[in-house]
Amino acid sequence: MKKKRINAYGLLEKIRKDGPVVHHLTNWVSIYDCANAVKVFGASPVMAHAPQEAAEMAGIASALVLNIGTLTEGLVEAMKIAALSANKKGIPVVLDACGAGATGLRDKSCFRLLDETKINIIKGNASEMARLAGRSVRTKGVDSAIIETDLKPLAGKLAGRRRSTVVITGKEDVVSDGSRTFIIKNGHSLMSHIVGTGCMAASVIGAFAAVEDDLAYAAAAGLVCFEVAAECAAKKSKGPGTFKGRLYDCMYALDKKTVDTLQRVYVE
Amino acid sequence: MKKKRINAYGLLEKIRKDGPVVHHLTNWVSIYDCANAVKVFGASPVMAHAPQEAAEMAGIASALVLNIGTLTEGLVEAMKIAALSANKKGIPVVLDACGAGATGLRDKSCFRLLDETKINIIKGNASEMARLAGRSVRTKGVDSAIIETDLKPLAGKLAGRRRSTVVITGKEDVVSDGSRTFIIKNGHSLMSHIVGTGCMAASVIGAFAAVEDDLAYAAAAGLVCFEVAAECAAKKSKGPGTFKGRLYDCMYALDKKTVDTLQRVYVE
Amino acid sequence: MKKKRINAYGLLEKIRKDGPVVHHLTNWVSIYDCANAVKVFGASPVMAHAPQEAAEMAGIASALVLNIGTLTEGLVEAMKIAALSANKKGIPVVLDACGAGATGLRDKSCFRLLDETKINIIKGNASEMARLAGRSVRTKGVDSAIIETDLKPLAGKLAGRRRSTVVITGKEDVVSDGSRTFIIKNGHSLMSHIVGTGCMAASVIGAFAAVEDDLAYAAAAGLVCFEVAAECAAKKSKGPGTFKGRLYDCMYALDKKTVDTLQRVYVE
Repeated sequence: MKKKRINAYGLLEKIRKDGPVVHHLTNWVSIYDCANAVKVFGASPVMAHAPQEAAEMAGIASALVLNIGTLTEGLVEAMKIAALSANKKGIPVVLDACGAGATGLRDKSCFRLLDETKINIIKGNASEMARLAGRSVRTKGVDSAIIETDLKPLAGKLAGRRRSTVVITGKEDVVSDGSRTFIIKNGHSLMSHIVGTGCMAASVIGAFAAVEDDLAYAAAAGLVCFEVAAECAAKKSKGPGTFKGRLYDCMYALDKKTVDTLQRVYVE
Repeated sequence: MKKKRINAYGLLEKIRKDGPVVHHLTNWVSIYDCANAVKVFGASPVMAHAPQEAAEMAGIASALVLNIGTLTEGLVEAMKIAALSANKKGIPVVLDACGAGATGLRDKSCFRLLDETKINIIKGNASEMARLAGRSVRTKGVDSAIIETDLKPLAGKLAGRRRSTVVITGKEDVVSDGSRTFIIKNGHSLMSHIVGTGCMAASVIGAFAAVEDDLAYAAAAGLVCFEVAAECAAKKSKGPGTFKGRLYDCMYALDKKTVDTLQRVYVE
Repeated sequence: MKKKRINAYGLLEKIRKDGPVVHHLTNWVSIYDCANAVKVFGASPVMAHAPQEAAEMAGIASALVLNIGTLTEGLVEAMKIAALSANKKGIPVVLDACGAGATGLRDKSCFRLLDETKINIIKGNASEMARLAGRSVRTKGVDSAIIETDLKPLAGKLAGRRRSTVVITGKEDVVSDGSRTFIIKNGHSLMSHIVGTGCMAASVIGAFAAVEDDLAYAAAAGLVCFEVAAECAAKKSKGPGTFKGRLYDCMYALDKKTVDTLQRVYVE
């Protein structure tokens, strides 16, 4: 594994300049934070889940983010409609497999989306991604049930089989498109003590994928910017509550020097 | 255009004294903020969207706020039921036309509510209001796609045609009931860097309309109080995240002297 | 009424050690705060309302929290499925009767859940609980419409009739299982000036009930920890907005000495 400097800030600058529309069909817990994360980074979030408008809204967007955190059968049907519209238009689709491995409905819904539409970026924690790779893991609600020393083979294999970019988040994040693997060692433990940072990461990845065709690179850059901002926010926080407010401040104010200095990216 | 002093604080005082119930059928992104904005100003928010109780809940309320931000066909049907109940009771109905002009479903839903119920206050950004006035505008998700120098004619014409009060929010807000026009030049740029301030404005207008029959005056007063609080909050903030917390502090603590000193209202 | 020292912190320690999964079917207004309250206290929240997975998710949980704040008929049906699964597994079920007494649908839904499933802890404000006890109270949306000097008989009678633990929140909280009554005199007035603290209290009670079989004791301990944290947060806040962030900080950092020193619990 070799340390590598990536121009993550360059993509953030592009988002701020272009303000791409990022369409979401997401969960009702972190829906505000998914939208706001995208907003403070300079993109234009839109949340629209009615089956009658999902395709049309995807048509005016530059990326689509799906998150099954509080799924229903009807919502998954609308996700499929939106994804097929995004596929047709050629914009990237991100799937946050929130809670895969916890119930049959979550597994079935993920597999349905993966099989019947083109998902360009699959994202989840170790437990969720192991389940999508076919292992019989029992996710603890939406928290990971497994801790592995090396998640790179899991990411690489799933990426190869699904011809997608795979993102496994955790203390270290693994991003693989089957040929290259990025490891991101940024972030702060406070992120795991509040609800929604995982969902926010998927939305941020959507915003970065909206402005960069190399999706593994875009995902890595998005995670770097989000997690470097979290490191800055943690320094100014008294706990998880004030951290959340500061996180948005730091995302909004993030500059090139900070991103370049604090990033810890490795490639294989 | 002439500068005019309005007694915006007088209405806020009435809200704090009476604690009117403000019923919402709103979106899942900013639903907490819609409720909390109304709450910190002293009113009593209630969110109830089941068609089986929408009419009954509107019946115990003093104002009804509808927001189509994450609409579905079923939700719009419930909005219609609630609006007809509010109409019957004679309480004001506010419609936030969130995302009108972005999809056919949003346009169709707004026109249906406007045609089949009495909407007393129609609120949106320039792009959304232009769409409702019949122009072929393509709203950028929920962000305005047009910037105009003078929105007063648009507001006035739509107000006249719909016999409603029209509120167009932006850098400057325009409020017209067809005969009078208020321009509010308060607010702060940080408001446009977080999600939900537009929705909060509609809810605040609902609370003010609950205590004042002159709806253009109520809407103008609500915007003044909300945006003066935002100006105070911005001074104490480090960015959009801390701004949000401070905004609620400042709304809660808003006093007569601050409102009277900082308000910048113009009439025509 | 006698002052009594309870080992509330002991249960919090157990939550932090075990990280129990707390399954919710709750409302769309405070869903983030319900999840985050449980999270910062060390439990693992999961929100899942699809009827197809509600039973399975309850099966991997250690407690179930139901909240009818933004109910629909379909959601109440899913709540019933989840509750029956929780009953079968023997994990405690908490019902927050949010808005009972405001509409017929809310009353009917509460009675249906109480009659057709086993609810172990029933929680609400004075107005909501009076309605569930059969009185013809008209709740003001989700705010209580009655102020009584002594709510202990109401709590005791309802607890006896339903063979449940009853929690009435207010300036003073009353917890009764029909034989014992706890009065908790902690908390801060800022809690009533933001939306969602009542819902958060129900979720916190769920987390405490997940690690303690004596449900009245668990509910009292949960309220003590939540409200002592609120007292600490209020001291560091400038208003209701900054209070909210500080509340999470103080919940996360809550220690034995603070809980033991500040708790004000009385028994009868």
